[in-house]
Amino acid sequence: MAVATLTFADRLAAEVERKRSQLVVGLDPQVDLMPVELRGDVARFCCGLVDAVAPHAVAVKPQLAFFEALGPAGMAAFDQVCIYARRAGLLVIADGKRGDIGSTARAYSEAYLEGDPPRADALTVNPWLGRDSVEPFLVTVRRGGAGIFVLVRTSNDGGDLQDVTLSDGRPMWHHVAGLVAEWGEDTIGEVRLSSVGAVVGATHPRAFADARRLMPRTVLLLPGVGAQGGSVSDLSRAFQSGPASALVSASRSVDYAFRGTGADFRDAAGAEAARLKQEIWTASGW
Amino acid sequence: MAVATLTFADRLAAEVERKRSQLVVGLDPQVDLMPVELRGDVARFCCGLVDAVAPHAVAVKPQLAFFEALGPAGMAAFDQVCIYARRAGLLVIADGKRGDIGSTARAYSEAYLEGDPPRADALTVNPWLGRDSVEPFLVTVRRGGAGIFVLVRTSNDGGDLQDVTLSDGRPMWHHVAGLVAEWGEDTIGEVRLSSVGAVVGATHPRAFADARRLMPRTVLLLPGVGAQGGSVSDLSRAFQSGPASALVSASRSVDYAFRGTGADFRDAAGAEAARLKQEIWTASGW
Repeated sequence: MAVATLTFADRLAAEVERKRSQLVVGLDPQVDLMPVELRGDVARFCCGLVDAVAPHAVAVKPQLAFFEALGPAGMAAFDQVCIYARRAGLLVIADGKRGDIGSTARAYSEAYLEGDPPRADALTVNPWLGRDSVEPFLVTVRRGGAGIFVLVRTSNDGGDLQDVTLSDGRPMWHHVAGLVAEWGEDTIGEVRLSSVGAVVGATHPRAFADARRLMPRTVLLLPGVGAQGGSVSDLSRAFQSGPASALVSASRSVDYAFRGTGADFRDAAGAEAARLKQEIWTASGW
Repeated sequence: MAVATLTFADRLAAEVERKRSQLVVGLDPQVDLMPVELRGDVARFCCGLVDAVAPHAVAVKPQLAFFEALGPAGMAAFDQVCIYARRAGLLVIADGKRGDIGSTARAYSEAYLEGDPPRADALTVNPWLGRDSVEPFLVTVRRGGAGIFVLVRTSNDGGDLQDVTLSDGRPMWHHVAGLVAEWGEDTIGEVRLSSVGAVVGATHPRAFADARRLMPRTVLLLPGVGAQGGSVSDLSRAFQSGPASALVSASRSVDYAFRGTGADFRDAAGAEAARLKQEIWTASGW
């Protein structure tokens, strides 16, 4: 099989096996939290984090908002960080939570998942506009190589929409989970995982069993460990479909591990990533 | 009252009265549809459209995806177009459909609605992550001057999420409409309109009456007129809360009005905007 035809999930699974890691490090460059001497240079801060976490994580997840807030220069930094991370052997999950209709969704897919090389390996996608808004991303995913992670149950408290009860008694997010499983059906690769993933907050560990049952072939991206208060216990349910069937994402607890210590930000981030990697691998049961 | 304390809805209402227009022109720079000689210069194309539509529209709505697809240079063009449009006396509604949690939503709010001057007057916001994801935008809106438009029922067909039936028998989007009305309650300005607006697709004219009833003080942004198939009939219901209580948005039908004609793109866009403005004003019943 040629490299170009490997699915995102297959590429991910190979990295998970190689590094024995299911850790994703979110890159959230909040200028006011960064080391004082780097506040003018978000790219340097993020590339430093990439160097530090590359041995321990399978992917980085740059949060687009923090780059966008810095204007065109921030977007240039985003590009630079993505290229740097991929060269360091990390997959890149652009955390943009994009979602729009028709030709606009195609433009987002082009912006992040297409091009030679594409800026990112995967993109987080907001499903609120329904299947026809996700379809342009699915077209790209089916072509091979790229992935998406659809927001199913996010890590925040706000369940005004996601937790509302439907006429059949299910919470709304269960309905969306069913759609995600369906949308991913024709993207299942060699490792029997779909490249249409789902975001399920690690702050809702009781949701893991439901998520796994409703989306048996879906890679679950579990954010909210660390600074957002999620713990790595109860993780094993999320990993029942294989060692690469879930990824645990930590952002601020790694990026800003140096704060309140005298350590170099890279050393602190590397140590925290190494610790989390091991803790997650053990909790995953693989 | 000092200018800085005018709400977005009050500023909008003043422009609607002054121009006798409720037209918003979406700026969707799709390179393959642009005049051949401008394909390398999205900013010039969009600024040409701004010049052409400024007498007829109250706002432009640049679609971020098309700028993002062009990388950092595209984002620089976005900034340039926003500044140009505001100087031309147009309000700017950044169509980003952003939505994220906590500090990330704050970064999006900073990116588009804060700064001196801010890049845009208003931003489209995706509500899927619930109230706590919208709250950082509400903080900015309450401070005065900025607005948001929450996606309630979008103009596409995909009702997989928005149209699903809840346990109380209502469609999901009615529930969201109720939340939007509530979120906007403390932003109601002098003209008795809230600066927390709602997107309701003009392709669902039967939804207008429900939207108006559920969100009596909300500015409705109605996209989908023209290229997406919506017509301007049935509009009067949407305008029942005042001449500025709804805005009709047309994008490709204006931006690409020149195609298939021999006309200059600016002349064609200006003529189509003038025609739509009049048609909408008449249909609005004001």
